[in-house]
Amino acid sequence: MPKLTDLPKRILIGRALRSDKLGETLLPKRLALPVFASDPLSSVAYAPGEVLLVLSIAGASAYHYSPWIAVAVVVLMFTVVASYRQNVHAYPSGGGDYEVATTNLGPKAGLTVASALLVDYVLTVAVSVASGIENLGSAVPFFATHKVLGAVSMIFLLMVMNLRGVRESGSIFAIPTYAFVVGVFCMILWGCFKIATGDTMEAPTAHYTIHAEVSGISGFALVFLLLRAFSSGCAALTGVEAISNGVPAFQKPKSKNAATTLAAMGVLAVTMFCGIIALAMYTKVRMAENPATDLLVDGKPVGPGYTQDPVIAQVAEAVFGHNSIPFIFLAAVTALVLFLAANTAYNGFPVLGSILAQDRYLPRQLHTRGDRLAFSNGIVVLAGFAAVLVYLYGADSTRLIQLYIVGVFVSFTLSQIGMVRHWNRHLRSETDTAKRRHMHRSRAINTFGAFFTGMVLIIVLLTKFTHGAWVAVLGMVLFYAMMTAIRRHYDRVSEEIAAGDERTDEEVRPSRVHSIILVSKVHKPTLRALAYAKLMRSDTLEALSINVDPADTKALQADWTRRGIDVPLKVLDSPYREITRPIIEYVKGLRRASPRDVVSVYIPEYVVGHWYEHLLHNQSALRLKGRLLFTPGVMVTSVPWQLDSSERAKVRARKRADWNAPGAIRRGPVSPPKRDKEHTGQK
Amino acid sequence: MPKLTDLPKRILIGRALRSDKLGETLLPKRLALPVFASDPLSSVAYAPGEVLLVLSIAGASAYHYSPWIAVAVVVLMFTVVASYRQNVHAYPSGGGDYEVATTNLGPKAGLTVASALLVDYVLTVAVSVASGIENLGSAVPFFATHKVLGAVSMIFLLMVMNLRGVRESGSIFAIPTYAFVVGVFCMILWGCFKIATGDTMEAPTAHYTIHAEVSGISGFALVFLLLRAFSSGCAALTGVEAISNGVPAFQKPKSKNAATTLAAMGVLAVTMFCGIIALAMYTKVRMAENPATDLLVDGKPVGPGYTQDPVIAQVAEAVFGHNSIPFIFLAAVTALVLFLAANTAYNGFPVLGSILAQDRYLPRQLHTRGDRLAFSNGIVVLAGFAAVLVYLYGADSTRLIQLYIVGVFVSFTLSQIGMVRHWNRHLRSETDTAKRRHMHRSRAINTFGAFFTGMVLIIVLLTKFTHGAWVAVLGMVLFYAMMTAIRRHYDRVSEEIAAGDERTDEEVRPSRVHSIILVSKVHKPTLRALAYAKLMRSDTLEALSINVDPADTKALQADWTRRGIDVPLKVLDSPYREITRPIIEYVKGLRRASPRDVVSVYIPEYVVGHWYEHLLHNQSALRLKGRLLFTPGVMVTSVPWQLDSSERAKVRARKRADWNAPGAIRRGPVSPPKRDKEHTGQK
Repeated sequence: MPKLTDLPKRILIGRALRSDKLGETLLPKRLALPVFASDPLSSVAYAPGEVLLVLSIAGASAYHYSPWIAVAVVVLMFTVVASYRQNVHAYPSGGGDYEVATTNLGPKAGLTVASALLVDYVLTVAVSVASGIENLGSAVPFFATHKVLGAVSMIFLLMVMNLRGVRESGSIFAIPTYAFVVGVFCMILWGCFKIATGDTMEAPTAHYTIHAEVSGISGFALVFLLLRAFSSGCAALTGVEAISNGVPAFQKPKSKNAATTLAAMGVLAVTMFCGIIALAMYTKVRMAENPATDLLVDGKPVGPGYTQDPVIAQVAEAVFGHNSIPFIFLAAVTALVLFLAANTAYNGFPVLGSILAQDRYLPRQLHTRGDRLAFSNGIVVLAGFAAVLVYLYGADSTRLIQLYIVGVFVSFTLSQIGMVRHWNRHLRSETDTAKRRHMHRSRAINTFGAFFTGMVLIIVLLTKFTHGAWVAVLGMVLFYAMMTAIRRHYDRVSEEIAAGDERTDEEVRPSRVHSIILVSKVHKPTLRALAYAKLMRSDTLEALSINVDPADTKALQADWTRRGIDVPLKVLDSPYREITRPIIEYVKGLRRASPRDVVSVYIPEYVVGHWYEHLLHNQSALRLKGRLLFTPGVMVTSVPWQLDSSERAKVRARKRADWNAPGAIRRGPVSPPKRDKEHTGQK
Repeated sequence: MPKLTDLPKRILIGRALRSDKLGETLLPKRLALPVFASDPLSSVAYAPGEVLLVLSIAGASAYHYSPWIAVAVVVLMFTVVASYRQNVHAYPSGGGDYEVATTNLGPKAGLTVASALLVDYVLTVAVSVASGIENLGSAVPFFATHKVLGAVSMIFLLMVMNLRGVRESGSIFAIPTYAFVVGVFCMILWGCFKIATGDTMEAPTAHYTIHAEVSGISGFALVFLLLRAFSSGCAALTGVEAISNGVPAFQKPKSKNAATTLAAMGVLAVTMFCGIIALAMYTKVRMAENPATDLLVDGKPVGPGYTQDPVIAQVAEAVFGHNSIPFIFLAAVTALVLFLAANTAYNGFPVLGSILAQDRYLPRQLHTRGDRLAFSNGIVVLAGFAAVLVYLYGADSTRLIQLYIVGVFVSFTLSQIGMVRHWNRHLRSETDTAKRRHMHRSRAINTFGAFFTGMVLIIVLLTKFTHGAWVAVLGMVLFYAMMTAIRRHYDRVSEEIAAGDERTDEEVRPSRVHSIILVSKVHKPTLRALAYAKLMRSDTLEALSINVDPADTKALQADWTRRGIDVPLKVLDSPYREITRPIIEYVKGLRRASPRDVVSVYIPEYVVGHWYEHLLHNQSALRLKGRLLFTPGVMVTSVPWQLDSSERAKVRARKRADWNAPGAIRRGPVSPPKRDKEHTGQK
């Protein structure tokens, strides 16, 4: 297992193990938990605060509703975890919500889920990084005053790391994640101990008062506020579906281990969430949506200079003391686990992209692993979107979270509806009573899950649409439209090129080959092209040169004769010193003279090592090739000549090929995923 | 002859005649004059003012030296014209100063001239456009207050026109140029008539006084000032060499007609220059280098709001009256002819570029005509440099001119020295007495020219280096270094690939060909590639598929068997869904097994119509091809399949090919230039 200390070295040196060496490692549960659960676990760093923030609108007195909201979130969490435990058993291939929705509800539902997930990846980066910087800011004030700078820098640091292909390894995830979990639990236990021993604990904001934006709230307005607080608390659920995408990476029995890990994650998340809320209530944490005006000290607003620390930091301060070592430690690991959560989006995107590419919703090349270029583009786009959002929203995690939850619940809901259909279908054919009983139970769980998450989705849309959720919805619509357009294009092309059922090809079978070698001078590349072309024994073979400069042409002809080259040399005049046009016209002429024949054009090509050398070589050849491809009945053969400088490029290319694609660890082992459309899925 | 009214239509529609249709048209003298002389003739719009500006440093009293300076400029002009008349006879091929210097003084001198000319092109654009906007500003105050905006816009307008390939036609040049010449002559004659009839004429600045920066100047300082004024006046000579580059475009007898045109241009320029200076003296035009502080009305400075109109505009105002129709007309045609002069740089650059490319100082593809891409890059670079200069110098023609004259006189001087050598060489072998007498005369002229222009170059460097000429010198050094590096690269490559003298190629003659067809699915492109590959009768032929998705592979194998395709299908496993690596390794394995054999890889390729379709197709093929080229002993054949959408691209490509390259008219007719190194040149 690589040591954590490898990380800086790997960043600097950029050498990372190849994915095939990594792929053999399957994840035991104790490593799978941190790899897949850093995102949902880290959300307890911001979710409790969001609940308090919304409630503060009705004043500090409304805080007493927070236990009820916590209960609702816990119930929802257990529902979702229970539902996804069904998913991992039924769909162990790692397709996740997209696969479930596509299989059971059709491609449109699947594409909706995919769009939601793509938006989610962007927001995971934005929210996690913003929140991480806020937590860092509670210990290091510099980051509190330079939030946008810090967050954008972090997004680009993660981008660069992933572009370089820093390998995900279990321990990189395990250490900060477990440190965070242990830290939070220590805090909760120490807090309980202090309460039990009668020690007093006060949050730094305990003596603040909150100016209620709306006072004496009741009736429908109160319900609406509570629903809003609840949907903010649902931020704790983001990332829960990650495990269902990662089943192939688990050790056997995969589905069972994944389900167990899901349950463990749910229990940990819920305990931390409730513990933090309870301690926040006890230590009298006071937070407001607009702290500058609504948070009062001695009746006066704290003013715009005030930085509102995250609830987890305030609780830690109350429990451990300001700037104590455990406080600093917790702030650091909280920030670290949040950055790790952001990093999962960089890793998750290529995995989803490759599945979507397989279904031709994204460019085909995303389907292959280790295609650095395609991955890189995706990573850059992801970082770009996230950075723009972070900039526009001032790296304020509270405002970004408004956008976040819609996408999560769109995929939850569609996935659960799909699971209900899945069980319905299987129940129709299943006869074994024991299995039927199991299926009925699973269906009940998924039905409840679909109902509950669907309701939450409606609540989120109702309470958050104008607060920013519309941005997420717009993003989803755009992704959906783009992917539909790409799929339509591939379908059209596939129809166009489909071979007829008979072997009698529509096109007339070609009969003969005219080969042409393009020659400008007698040098090694030309001689090689000649030697190769002669090996191919075409029906006719001639060398072709364009008379751009009469002196050069004369020299060429003389050299040709002197060397006794036994291939006829034809010279085409080109009064305008054009190269492409005379060749194209000559080839067209050949085709016109014998339409059933094929013309094979050999182009000696230089292989160079630097981009600027490309400006100096092959330009005419490239242009010519581009034009020739438009001419029917022509094939174009490049006969490469490797210049010395190409050696360097070869080394670079090899290094690029050895690059380790982000997301390798969570894709699981090397066996290509079987995407059978039928599953007999059963617990 | 196309009408001037075609211009807007052509700009909008972008359809321009092809260069070969144009090439047949040789220029009669009456059209050659405006085509080649718009640059030198237009410089009389700013040169007289520059003389007055410099003299004003010593106060208005120093203006009485201006006739002497005018005389010196006239003598210089006649010297240069006489010298270049020798050039056009001796070197009628259009190579211009670069050819003369290279042939007679060696490649380093030639490259120096080329660097100077490249800098000159940039400055011609910057100075002419800046001066044009100033002249426009004398009639339309908007341009006087928005000089930079106007000048940069004009530079980009010219760029776009030339990128679209607006055809140069004789009349587009003729009308504004002759209108300008006629306008200036009318002004001079009308001015003389008014003087003769005793009419009073006063420039708008006649009652201004000049605050002398240095008063009571004398001795060395006076001489230095006069030399500086003289070198500013030399701006009138910029562009004189253009005709010597354009000899091939003249009607026969080419050299004689070119010489006559040169003489006509010299006479016109000199007359206008002197006329404008004389009228400026008579009408008491007052100009200062820093008008805001040094120009006084009633003893008070005019202040920063004052706009100093060009001398030609002030004289026109005095002669015709403020805002009279002839005044507006003259301002308009002056601006127009200056913009035309700027446009000649856009046209001249590709011509010089193609000559330099022929000598491998610039990328080879510049050598071919009508290579839109290469031209476009050049035009964009030219416009970019010019725009930066205009921006940095606030579109102030006076400051830009400081940079301008160095380059001009570098090429004048080296060209004339080269001519002296030329005659010396010919005198050594010539025996005919009449011819010898002629040569002696020519040599005398060129010797005087070399001496005089060399002296001016020294004066310009001495008086202007710190005023901005260093920028031009720096630019020349950079161009020189770049071109040397390019040439060195080409030489190194050419040495590397030079074929040995024997036919016994260094590389082992290949013996057999293994052909591989890459297959992903049985569709029309695959069937075509199969049919073509079978025609080529290689020694072994197999189809190769990468097992990225087992289901797809199974379907492919079934289809293959069902259709009874008689080529064996090999499937390579790719656990990581990579495509490139397994193929490269397979090919390398083949090569290792039989190193003397050649591997021929057939790749079915889609030809698409839009750039975004490229993102969706051929990416894997392109990447694979890129990697295969680095593998020795491999040739790569693209078998294109034209998708329906490629039709549109074909139309676009044809349109691009029909594009009319800037500079076509001045390159002359279609016969490729003979660049013989020996000339029997004689008048």
